Amino acid sequence: MTELRQVSQSELAQLHTQLTVQYSDYKARNLKLDMTRGKPAANQLDLANDLNVVLAANEYTAQDGTDVRNYGGLDGLPEIRALLGEVIGASPSSVIVGGNSSLQIMHDTIVRALLHGVPGGSGPWLAQKSKFLCPVPGYDRHFAICQHHGIEMINVPMNAEGPDLGVIEPLVAGDSSIKGIWCVPKYSNPTGITYSNAVVERLSRMQTAAPDFRIFWDNAYVVHDLYDSTSPLLNILETCKQTGNENRPLVFVSTSKISFAGGGIAAMASSPVNVADAKKHLSFQTIGPDKLNQLRHSRFFRNLAGIKVHMQKHASIIRPKFEAVVSIFERELGGLGISRWTNPRGGYFVSLDTEPGCASQVVKYADEAGVKLTAAGATFPYGKDPDDCNIRIAPTLPPLEQVELAMQIVALCVKLASIERLLKR
Amino acid sequence: MTELRQVSQSELAQLHTQLTVQYSDYKARNLKLDMTRGKPAANQLDLANDLNVVLAANEYTAQDGTDVRNYGGLDGLPEIRALLGEVIGASPSSVIVGGNSSLQIMHDTIVRALLHGVPGGSGPWLAQKSKFLCPVPGYDRHFAICQHHGIEMINVPMNAEGPDLGVIEPLVAGDSSIKGIWCVPKYSNPTGITYSNAVVERLSRMQTAAPDFRIFWDNAYVVHDLYDSTSPLLNILETCKQTGNENRPLVFVSTSKISFAGGGIAAMASSPVNVADAKKHLSFQTIGPDKLNQLRHSRFFRNLAGIKVHMQKHASIIRPKFEAVVSIFERELGGLGISRWTNPRGGYFVSLDTEPGCASQVVKYADEAGVKLTAAGATFPYGKDPDDCNIRIAPTLPPLEQVELAMQIVALCVKLASIERLLKR
Repeated sequence: MTELRQVSQSELAQLHTQLTVQYSDYKARNLKLDMTRGKPAANQLDLANDLNVVLAANEYTAQDGTDVRNYGGLDGLPEIRALLGEVIGASPSSVIVGGNSSLQIMHDTIVRALLHGVPGGSGPWLAQKSKFLCPVPGYDRHFAICQHHGIEMINVPMNAEGPDLGVIEPLVAGDSSIKGIWCVPKYSNPTGITYSNAVVERLSRMQTAAPDFRIFWDNAYVVHDLYDSTSPLLNILETCKQTGNENRPLVFVSTSKISFAGGGIAAMASSPVNVADAKKHLSFQTIGPDKLNQLRHSRFFRNLAGIKVHMQKHASIIRPKFEAVVSIFERELGGLGISRWTNPRGGYFVSLDTEPGCASQVVKYADEAGVKLTAAGATFPYGKDPDDCNIRIAPTLPPLEQVELAMQIVALCVKLASIERLLKR
Repeated sequence: MTELRQVSQSELAQLHTQLTVQYSDYKARNLKLDMTRGKPAANQLDLANDLNVVLAANEYTAQDGTDVRNYGGLDGLPEIRALLGEVIGASPSSVIVGGNSSLQIMHDTIVRALLHGVPGGSGPWLAQKSKFLCPVPGYDRHFAICQHHGIEMINVPMNAEGPDLGVIEPLVAGDSSIKGIWCVPKYSNPTGITYSNAVVERLSRMQTAAPDFRIFWDNAYVVHDLYDSTSPLLNILETCKQTGNENRPLVFVSTSKISFAGGGIAAMASSPVNVADAKKHLSFQTIGPDKLNQLRHSRFFRNLAGIKVHMQKHASIIRPKFEAVVSIFERELGGLGISRWTNPRGGYFVSLDTEPGCASQVVKYADEAGVKLTAAGATFPYGKDPDDCNIRIAPTLPPLEQVELAMQIVALCVKLASIERLLKR
């Protein structure tokens, strides 16, 4: 395939005319395809339907004898702390299990820090013009929390091994108002990469001017392999303990994309000091989480092996969708030199990079042809992709044939927008 | 019965000696009775056991077609908004249904106001040295939220009709930093009184210096009648609308003491402006609540009538416990002129007032005889009862015979402490 930049202007114009005909055909079909949402498909959710019936009417007693129907148990049932601890490599005592949303735990952790500070710090983050590092592209809801609460965000480029430590290290060493970093360390949202050992080690070891610097380690895709092999990730709780920074990492996890997206179990894990601090604050916020749902999850999955078997069933359903995205991009866009895309081994997204300045046009064209894509820029703080090149593709929710059709249209839109840009040279 | 204050010192001393013998007998029994916790008893929780099995494995579709297993639905399923709206007298669209804890919704509402302010206000409450009015005695966890977040609390006396408006009106009219008031308007915690129409109307109508004054209306015991008749309560959403203050009330409710204390459903209701504001903030905090549990509750209770039938079953279980408390106090303490207690028609508590300066001694004596009572002062901001006279009794959790035994001991402790005080005259 010839790279488009090497094609003459007249040939490009001719190609553009052909593609415009195809595009008009798609438009005429009045399609409605939605590729925006990182949601499980209904047949993935079906895998956990027995959660609804795993407890008999008279089953409400936890391992330690707790009546799960009643108040109490601020940090969650022992068996569910053990289960989620096993998932993320944390001891049960270092895990706090909350409600159904890890986003809420992260949000509330930020809010607590804003109002009260964190252990080892010098008071409320609100009073310190706090800043956060944001590896980009990243998860829009992380960035939205910071923006909503007035925490300034600093972009950090992601590379194949994770966030660029060459950028991070001098920043955190020189500015005590930089209080944290958002990380999705495994099958990152949206690029799908898993942080290398070197990256995890440098994050654990680096000198920070802020004594209360925190790594928000959103391990949302910890068991979300698309293939039989996994991408290994160092245990940041352990690496930070080894480097004497055990209060640095805050690990978040949920079963949202394991059991039910809207009815799962979420948790946080950290050092004894951070866990004690979080429990103190939580004691003012609630009398305790929904322990019935915790018991359901414990009975349904039993242990990490049970979760892994379950995740293989998920993979069987969604792997073909990911492979369809990648194979259509390869077929339609391969060798043209106008885009790059990820071929993830896990997680929920494919990340597509156009040439600079094309992404929003692609999203617009796709929308006009009935394919809804995540807004260009959404994967960047403040919704601003400085290069206007990144597009997040979420292939799990729609049926395979819709994914295929949508990706053909997206590929066409990438070609159209890229050619138009080349024609303006 | 002769009032003890009219008994001679020598007779009092003799009586004290007799009572001390009784007290020593109780002590020798090494009892362990806990009257501190406003928790439902196991047989109350049993009433809702079918919540565990009300959904079949393939039941996950809400009335509007929503797949409740997946993400979304920030304000809750339509049917559960309708159900809880019916309970508190609010239209479904003015209800936001969250997780399992109304305390958490209240806490988060305070936190949002601290960080971002509320509609109609002049910015974050944090920057305005905000104060709250606290009718006393009241709910310790309300007060704890304020104390934890540095909101100054001002005591307001409760009388038989609710909080004393003669105290409240000049305070709120004269101080724009007074931003809110905590209210448990029906079967109040701990006094059991229900606010009169006049109190609700004056709260709705009163002039407040703060344009963003909010009534935190914790309607925790809205359907928690002990008898067939209920104590009517005006609908504050309506009265405030009539007085042109529709943004003033924030109504909170939960099924914690209807279904499962640890696995219920909680909600907030307010004006369109407040609901829109809360939803905007919530959208940064979570993708949505656990809708499966909402669907369970909707299927199990169906409507307000279903809830009322269910609450009659609760009443049958706990009414004898309340009646035991009151009848033992009447038998042991009646006419002695050393204490007053409530005879609630609903709710979860009996409130006992000793003579000033006696409550902590009563709690101490009871504790030493194996009866754990809520700490004296707990029903007041900062844990400080200025008169040291109020004790909250929570009779629901222990079995009836334990309640009876505990109350006999408490009555004895009241007598002991009171006589000791009289002997010091």
